[in-house]
Amino acid sequence: MAVDKKIVVLVGGVGGAKLALGLSHIVPPENLTLIVNTGDDFKHLGLKICPDLDTVMYTLAGVVNPEFGWGLQDDSTTTLNTLEKHYHFEPWFRLGDKDMATHLLRTSMLNEGYTLTEVVSFLSQQIGVKPKMLPMTDSDVPTLVETETMGILGFQEYFVKHRWQPVIRSIHYKGHENAIISESVKCALESADILIIAPSNPWLSIAPILSLPHMRDLITSRNIPRVMVTPVIGGAAVKGPTAKIMSELGLDVTAESVAHYYGDVITGFVNDTQNVELALGGIKTIQFDTLMNDLDDKIRLAQSILDWIGGWGV
Amino acid sequence: MAVDKKIVVLVGGVGGAKLALGLSHIVPPENLTLIVNTGDDFKHLGLKICPDLDTVMYTLAGVVNPEFGWGLQDDSTTTLNTLEKHYHFEPWFRLGDKDMATHLLRTSMLNEGYTLTEVVSFLSQQIGVKPKMLPMTDSDVPTLVETETMGILGFQEYFVKHRWQPVIRSIHYKGHENAIISESVKCALESADILIIAPSNPWLSIAPILSLPHMRDLITSRNIPRVMVTPVIGGAAVKGPTAKIMSELGLDVTAESVAHYYGDVITGFVNDTQNVELALGGIKTIQFDTLMNDLDDKIRLAQSILDWIGGWGV
Repeated sequence: MAVDKKIVVLVGGVGGAKLALGLSHIVPPENLTLIVNTGDDFKHLGLKICPDLDTVMYTLAGVVNPEFGWGLQDDSTTTLNTLEKHYHFEPWFRLGDKDMATHLLRTSMLNEGYTLTEVVSFLSQQIGVKPKMLPMTDSDVPTLVETETMGILGFQEYFVKHRWQPVIRSIHYKGHENAIISESVKCALESADILIIAPSNPWLSIAPILSLPHMRDLITSRNIPRVMVTPVIGGAAVKGPTAKIMSELGLDVTAESVAHYYGDVITGFVNDTQNVELALGGIKTIQFDTLMNDLDDKIRLAQSILDWIGGWGV
Repeated sequence: MAVDKKIVVLVGGVGGAKLALGLSHIVPPENLTLIVNTGDDFKHLGLKICPDLDTVMYTLAGVVNPEFGWGLQDDSTTTLNTLEKHYHFEPWFRLGDKDMATHLLRTSMLNEGYTLTEVVSFLSQQIGVKPKMLPMTDSDVPTLVETETMGILGFQEYFVKHRWQPVIRSIHYKGHENAIISESVKCALESADILIIAPSNPWLSIAPILSLPHMRDLITSRNIPRVMVTPVIGGAAVKGPTAKIMSELGLDVTAESVAHYYGDVITGFVNDTQNVELALGGIKTIQFDTLMNDLDDKIRLAQSILDWIGGWGV
């Protein structure tokens, strides 16, 4: 059974968190490790904000806002409203009052000298997440977006402030060449039996992870199933800017483009039943319904993927 | 009229803020400067908290919690509750969600390199305080309390966590000997026509201000009315630990003790009508009803004090 194997998932925000949640329902927690993108991280009002880590953590803890897919459910914005009312500070980044607890505690622990890896371990355990969650690195690797009309934007400026509307010329993972892969991430990848790349945005969520020094080598050196799940369904992304970015970068908005982008990182490809069937040289492919609307969908997809990989003879 | 004079007030928290509010109703804002104790300031969850500055600011902006005399009215504690619920972090210091806006913005501005004086100026103007508010210094001068049974406590630990119950042996203003009086404070004192010491706790609120290098000389060198208002009424403090501390420090709990403690810093003494009449060599004294329950009381006392000083022939 594939669930007895050590499974490592590369994951970004909302879309990827859904598959991670599905996996967490069928894989024993000690066999599941999530390596989470930190390229979106930034400082806001002095707080260290880690959008993807929080989305994954809240999702797996069962406290995520079900409408948005991020943030905490039933949250309020009293602090933000007060910043606006009393200090005329116009917030462009939504910070809920409940969510604030996470940012405050994380920032405070980081300032005390804990690594992000240690902080994420503490917070995720406290909030009740059982699988291991690891930030992709403890180094700062902020994603920068070069736009046609607004110059270079920090990721959250691009994504939240300007609602991913500026046309992208290129994407940079600033400082990636000097970033250090933590021992925890290295160890997880070296002992993994299966690697899954969640259906997250390849350029904004997965590429920052792959941009880390030696990361591609570390992954491709492992003779294990390395399977991606398509983030593109029927020529579009389920949510967010994946399709828009692909077309701005001059790529066909197809699952095939994404598969080519990952190149030798992957050995297996979970395509969606709505996409055209693909034959990729040397890469195993299969088609599932990859749309995950409810918890059953998530568990079903996770189970299908593991069953499929289990059939490879792992 | 004394209200045409430049009035500087040394002030701490709740009690002092009441008189400051009264003064702000009758003195044109350009003639009123409040020098506020920062000895209570501390860091909590990475946030810079300035209890006395906030109490004075919220009081003068008309947004203070009327029940407590500190904090913002109609505040909630969603962030604190979430820290407890999700992260099992037990908060001993109450941080309201509205109040959080102040701490976040202040901490963020300080981290960006603004001085506390600049931050206080910005925040107080934004929230609608008209008189000038100045922190006593931009240096860190944390008040430490040496207790009989618990060793040395930070001020907020003593005051909030242990509800000022430990018996005090001595009080220290850590780092005061190296603190620097800001140009703004120096300038305000040098150009003052009247100095008023608010009915704040002498040892916890006013002494930290007087402990700053050259502060006593700066004050006593000014040949102006320098008037204190008794924080002791009928052998007790209106609120807080003043009387308890006086008795622990071996002092009589009387207005006279406080007058002696201030020594040559003061030239005038506003006693309460409930206290015994005093004759203090070289110090003008008068008795007023100094209890300030409502806004009328605050304005009436402020007016009485200024009328009295006006009669000195300033």
